[in-house]
Amino acid sequence: MNAVVENMTGEIERQMQEMGRRARAASRALARAETGAKNAALMAMASVIEARAEALMAENRKDLEAGEQNGLDAALLDRLAFTPERIAVMAEGLRQIATLPDPVGAISDLNYRPSGIQVGRMRVPLGVIGIIYESRPNVTVDAAGLCLKSGNACILRGGSEAFHSNRALAECIRAGLEQAGLPVDAVQVVATTDRAAVGALLRMKDFVDVIVPRGGKGLIARVSEESLIPVIKHLDGVCHVYLDDGADPDKALKVSVNAKTHRYGTCNTMETLLVSRAVAEQMLPALGQAFEEKGVELRGCAATRAILPGIKEATEQDWFEEYLAPVLAVRVVDGLDAAIEHINTYGSHHTDSIITEDYTRARRFLREVDSSSVMVNASTRFADGFEYGLGAEIGISTDKLHARGPVGLEGLTTLKYVVLGDGHVRS
Amino acid sequence: MNAVVENMTGEIERQMQEMGRRARAASRALARAETGAKNAALMAMASVIEARAEALMAENRKDLEAGEQNGLDAALLDRLAFTPERIAVMAEGLRQIATLPDPVGAISDLNYRPSGIQVGRMRVPLGVIGIIYESRPNVTVDAAGLCLKSGNACILRGGSEAFHSNRALAECIRAGLEQAGLPVDAVQVVATTDRAAVGALLRMKDFVDVIVPRGGKGLIARVSEESLIPVIKHLDGVCHVYLDDGADPDKALKVSVNAKTHRYGTCNTMETLLVSRAVAEQMLPALGQAFEEKGVELRGCAATRAILPGIKEATEQDWFEEYLAPVLAVRVVDGLDAAIEHINTYGSHHTDSIITEDYTRARRFLREVDSSSVMVNASTRFADGFEYGLGAEIGISTDKLHARGPVGLEGLTTLKYVVLGDGHVRS
Repeated sequence: MNAVVENMTGEIERQMQEMGRRARAASRALARAETGAKNAALMAMASVIEARAEALMAENRKDLEAGEQNGLDAALLDRLAFTPERIAVMAEGLRQIATLPDPVGAISDLNYRPSGIQVGRMRVPLGVIGIIYESRPNVTVDAAGLCLKSGNACILRGGSEAFHSNRALAECIRAGLEQAGLPVDAVQVVATTDRAAVGALLRMKDFVDVIVPRGGKGLIARVSEESLIPVIKHLDGVCHVYLDDGADPDKALKVSVNAKTHRYGTCNTMETLLVSRAVAEQMLPALGQAFEEKGVELRGCAATRAILPGIKEATEQDWFEEYLAPVLAVRVVDGLDAAIEHINTYGSHHTDSIITEDYTRARRFLREVDSSSVMVNASTRFADGFEYGLGAEIGISTDKLHARGPVGLEGLTTLKYVVLGDGHVRS
Repeated sequence: MNAVVENMTGEIERQMQEMGRRARAASRALARAETGAKNAALMAMASVIEARAEALMAENRKDLEAGEQNGLDAALLDRLAFTPERIAVMAEGLRQIATLPDPVGAISDLNYRPSGIQVGRMRVPLGVIGIIYESRPNVTVDAAGLCLKSGNACILRGGSEAFHSNRALAECIRAGLEQAGLPVDAVQVVATTDRAAVGALLRMKDFVDVIVPRGGKGLIARVSEESLIPVIKHLDGVCHVYLDDGADPDKALKVSVNAKTHRYGTCNTMETLLVSRAVAEQMLPALGQAFEEKGVELRGCAATRAILPGIKEATEQDWFEEYLAPVLAVRVVDGLDAAIEHINTYGSHHTDSIITEDYTRARRFLREVDSSSVMVNASTRFADGFEYGLGAEIGISTDKLHARGPVGLEGLTTLKYVVLGDGHVRS
């Protein structure tokens, strides 16, 4: 590294450390903030965003113009663009978070022990959360709202393509915090597009308690590898639907088609359909036709292709694939055990569903499939914080520790033990 | 590396991978094992340990003789030694784990959502747990019992100084598993003292879900740094007792003395006593005398030494120190805010207690001290899985994510979402 680059990197490191120090201080104030103050801040943030809609659109146009010049594709530009409707949705999201119950401070299971002490657990914020994300600037608002309500300070690092939009949103958020008398440093947006800032953030063990990356696989892999701080992450969504012996053919068809075609690019979309040999001949023709009508390319095992001869051959690699596209792998399996074995071997432990009318096999599937969501007779597309009643989500965790599946306010908190005595000592 | 060493390391890597593969397969059988079978295995393990007491003593003597030759100090040799009583305690521990409720499979909060689906959460095992520990061979038995009851397979790597003892205990454990018809690979003990085995274990992401290190700071630092697998760890225990304005002097004295002197070497022992300026003159003389009688060396701030002139001066470093010895740092602070600030700055977020009769300050201390256990009028020595009613503990976590404080059976499990529908699709 030459001296100029080294000085710049050192400067970014110092700036990030300073942000960390401020975030830590703000997190302590936020941890003891009253529910009313947090809700007032959320409502104020929403109002400021609506009031500044024009200015937000103007800042967003700077990003869109830069994006066009840098050759961003149309889909990315669309994700980046503000419209009056999208701005209203962001404000509405904050108001919805204000209506959710405050998880902080709730004490559960406060019981007396034989020694005479009373022991319970209090739900408390994690502290400072670092969020690293790409593209859609609405994440700035959602993440800030969820962190605030759960009593955490946050440091937000959005994508460089949304730099002006994110900065303008951050100003609205901080104005809302100020109006409610909460520390503005509760939400800080990294004010540089230099990638060194991400590296610095991932090393700030003393100031940041957890990192949440949101974006493509490349981002998540880099963050997981580099971070010295625990990461709540979302890897692949290789989701399965298994059609069991004696499954109801209508449910099988309806759920399979919904799980695959409701949206192609989401992590809870089905990527492999497993069909028990006992029902393959009965069910595959109608399924093949339905998917053909929807324009979904099927890739099948030999047994599938014996029934649907027109389709492509699936390779071993297809069982691992998260297509995020109108492509579906189809495999005929020898019943429940083979289906569970396939899912636990090739799946990504995200969301898997069995279509069955059999009590015992439904029960076994729920227990033995090792995924963050296991379903009976329901579309994998339901795996979502809103559908589960969490009110909002900061992402879907494919980790086993701490938070698994959709992560809402509870996933942004931890529990501490509370012990009440009256001069009790241990003997 | 020369070719011979390289081959040996490669061989250990292969052996560890093979253990991982067996552990993963066993973990699937264990995850669906019935409570009765797990309890039968625990009871059988206890009986085998008792029946083989003579043989265990003989294997243990090999370790003790090697330890003497290698110059282990008397305290370590004592921790290592089996006695008939200690063997009985190990067996009894397994029987107690058998009496604890089985956490696996419990479904909570199964509620209907507006879409018509029913959503709940099922408690499930983590999968495969790697435990790396030093010295006391009873950890082999405790850890195996806790992992088994919580439905997890485990790979145990004890210290080389307990090699023969651990191997003999593992044979008892596996005999118990076999008698109950559970896979013997549910508990595997690493059969080499080569340190490369630890390195290999920490890299086996595909086969191991979580690592639990138990031992000194050096071990835990090495494991945390090297591991590619999430670690549930226990760092320092720098615990505080704060004597508040108007605290009851009897409770203050009794709890402070118990928190420091009940045992010196435990992580929940008080290391710093904080005294509000308002009560320092009233309380410090009696405390000074009590600690002097117990042979505890005090190190005080200037204000403390003005009241107890005979004691040593505390340096900034003393506020960070985990003495694990008859030494106590004492600081006079300007009331509750200063006490909380001191604890959150210098403490290790383990266990802290306030002695107070004031409702508002007790409430603030519980909420604002950022530690895994916060207490009112109780000795920090209560921070323990047994005292909290967890039945048993695999350690005390100072991490915030997943498990915080004493870790029992629940800490060795995770939650997955369960969704029940009747052909429901997302619209």
